[in-house]
Amino acid sequence: MSNKVKLVEVGPRDGLQNEKSLVDTKVKFEFIKLLHEAGLDCIEVTSFVRPDKIPQMQDSADLYKMVADKLDLQKLRTPCLVPNLKGLEKAKGLGVKEIALFTATSNTFNLKNINASVDESFIRLEAVAKEALENDISIRGYLSTVFGCPYEGKIQTEQVLRTLEKLMKLGVYEVSLGDTIGVANPHQVVAIISEIKKNFDLSKMAMHFHDTEGMALANIYTSYEEGIRVFDSSAAGLGGCPYAKGATGNVATDDVVNLFEKLNVETGVDMSKLHEASRFILEHLKKDSVSKFYNAYRGRHSKA
Amino acid sequence: MSNKVKLVEVGPRDGLQNEKSLVDTKVKFEFIKLLHEAGLDCIEVTSFVRPDKIPQMQDSADLYKMVADKLDLQKLRTPCLVPNLKGLEKAKGLGVKEIALFTATSNTFNLKNINASVDESFIRLEAVAKEALENDISIRGYLSTVFGCPYEGKIQTEQVLRTLEKLMKLGVYEVSLGDTIGVANPHQVVAIISEIKKNFDLSKMAMHFHDTEGMALANIYTSYEEGIRVFDSSAAGLGGCPYAKGATGNVATDDVVNLFEKLNVETGVDMSKLHEASRFILEHLKKDSVSKFYNAYRGRHSKA
Repeated sequence: MSNKVKLVEVGPRDGLQNEKSLVDTKVKFEFIKLLHEAGLDCIEVTSFVRPDKIPQMQDSADLYKMVADKLDLQKLRTPCLVPNLKGLEKAKGLGVKEIALFTATSNTFNLKNINASVDESFIRLEAVAKEALENDISIRGYLSTVFGCPYEGKIQTEQVLRTLEKLMKLGVYEVSLGDTIGVANPHQVVAIISEIKKNFDLSKMAMHFHDTEGMALANIYTSYEEGIRVFDSSAAGLGGCPYAKGATGNVATDDVVNLFEKLNVETGVDMSKLHEASRFILEHLKKDSVSKFYNAYRGRHSKA
Repeated sequence: MSNKVKLVEVGPRDGLQNEKSLVDTKVKFEFIKLLHEAGLDCIEVTSFVRPDKIPQMQDSADLYKMVADKLDLQKLRTPCLVPNLKGLEKAKGLGVKEIALFTATSNTFNLKNINASVDESFIRLEAVAKEALENDISIRGYLSTVFGCPYEGKIQTEQVLRTLEKLMKLGVYEVSLGDTIGVANPHQVVAIISEIKKNFDLSKMAMHFHDTEGMALANIYTSYEEGIRVFDSSAAGLGGCPYAKGATGNVATDDVVNLFEKLNVETGVDMSKLHEASRFILEHLKKDSVSKFYNAYRGRHSKA
């Protein structure tokens, strides 16, 4: 098996969407550019959602245009999150080549998040997926609450496998399995991956861990040992956790790159350039990083 | 193999020694009492060192007397760090039942830290150990810089094994293997433990990880899977890292207990009481916790 991993950078979308401050479009673009220059070649740029619901993403069209205009999209993949056909129409109009669709394993989570049960969500997703594929737009799938739900607690493995199968059938090229509330542990990771292996092609699975309880790197290491080679992460650990006040969200790309560098696993990312990208966005957000590695690296490299 | 672990709480000594603020003896005692009430039954209480060198520990005699007077030392083990014969004399005078001795794998580290090479350090340690054992004082050993040295970088495994053997020969009942600068990674952990297993009784080995780069839980999980059952940690992650400005030091007991609870491994610690102990000391230090789990737990349980 390869000892290379692919990192999907979700900071500009998943990260910034969960930050309180609104960020200027030009700053977002500069952030994306710095991330790409650091070697990240798949960056979730934005989402086409209702601006009244998610004001952080209200500049999605302008941002996507800027990215398409100034960066080489032969070398940089830029998936955009799309919740429904309306979002897909926007994406199509802008020439977006890749979208991300999402659902969760849990009915309660889906009802609170998108006002549809899991099964109802697939009716919507099928229409969007069909239209996207007919227009040569490739699709990444997100499956949330794989390791636990903020409302339902533990999720049965059969439920994970059932929703995963439905998502794969939509024609997605990859599914990102999300620990939405950051409660997974390494034994659970081993258990779920071993079930998934029996039924699906593991090379189509990505892991999306949140570092809410500081366990993301243990889970990522375990996933890697079990054969997963694609990981989502967010520069500087941008984004919070809506389910625990003051808690952190996405695992920091900085921490993930350091883990893999230490394990001699290739990420394609230049640490010093990644650090600059993280520092850039943190300065704009006027906040400190939640990434322990970011802080240790900064301490070592800053002139005292 | 047992699926219980023993946690050695090092917050009152290793943690507070690395904090800038000096803490009142009564506050230290109350902290130790709360930790013990939470179920921690081995707490490194203090160290008998030169007060002009380490002012944070200048109240060691008063604190130890308070602990011996008010807590049941049949149920609570209270190792005290001792650097030399002078420290041992103080410990003996107070009726201390257990001491901790320390050295490192690296000559440069030892020369900067205790002004002696590794071999010279053992000349001192032999005298202290002999005297301690003759007085029925049991000894825990610390071996620093096992996974890397701030001055020499990578440490050869033979050097680790050689110093470990010398330390065991002193008559210590356990050696705590320290990742002093928090640079270990899970593959290195597997490699070192597999060498140690060949030469020593693994049940006499403890792991002492720093969370400087956020990788402590990954390393602890890996160590557990490799058979280690004793771990050092510090409530709320007290203590910094003298080698990287702004970086964190000891792994937080809160994070370690959560990891093992999730893995269904018994720690004997009551999470809610541990949280109170951590909160107590953080309030006195007027600082936030570096433990992601502490912050997530607090967010979930505090009235918004």
